[in-house]
Amino acid sequence: MAKHFDTQALDRYFAAMADPTRRAVLERLTQGPASVSELHAPHAMALPSFLRHLRVLEEGGLIATEKQGRVRMARIEARPVRAAEDWLAQLRRQWETRLDRLDALSEALEQTAKGDAP
Amino acid sequence: MAKHFDTQALDRYFAAMADPTRRAVLERLTQGPASVSELHAPHAMALPSFLRHLRVLEEGGLIATEKQGRVRMARIEARPVRAAEDWLAQLRRQWETRLDRLDALSEALEQTAKGDAP
Repeated sequence: MAKHFDTQALDRYFAAMADPTRRAVLERLTQGPASVSELHAPHAMALPSFLRHLRVLEEGGLIATEKQGRVRMARIEARPVRAAEDWLAQLRRQWETRLDRLDALSEALEQTAKGDAP
Repeated sequence: MAKHFDTQALDRYFAAMADPTRRAVLERLTQGPASVSELHAPHAMALPSFLRHLRVLEEGGLIATEKQGRVRMARIEARPVRAAEDWLAQLRRQWETRLDRLDALSEALEQTAKGDAP
């Protein structure tokens, strides 16, 4: 691909996104930073399991957490979402370019065929 | 989120994309359909391991394969790439909307402060 992508980062980003709980956390964090308990509240899941999901997100670089007093706050990181979106957009553009070329070729052939007709 | 996304499909799409070999196969297939041996050729990997990657892509719905005579041909499916891209774009738009609101609020506060100044 034309653009350079950080392969290991994309591995981590996509793996982190491949889970509904982790995607829900990312969606929640688009509304602003939240504490770990706020993030956990909507999920019918034991806290240790939930914390494992947060750890995957943090180790993957998709969120950052920070202790504020006795509360751990989390916020979303912009870069992973942009990088994953860029990779997908480039993939899509590549085959759209190819399909456009095929369209142009097929039109040119049609015109030639018409020109050749009596 | 406003738009409805197929959660289990997104799980499969992102998991399938979380591997450099599988992403390279998708990139190759944007240039047009290819046989399994053409797809395998650039990868220094035993065929059985490579076939496992193709199976993840096919079971995830990211590619389709079809036997043509003695050759198995693969092609990329458009929908998974679009769905994953849509989810990421929506995520990004949500926090951009929030940041815009914060900007507007901070500007309004600044104007008010100026108005109050002697």
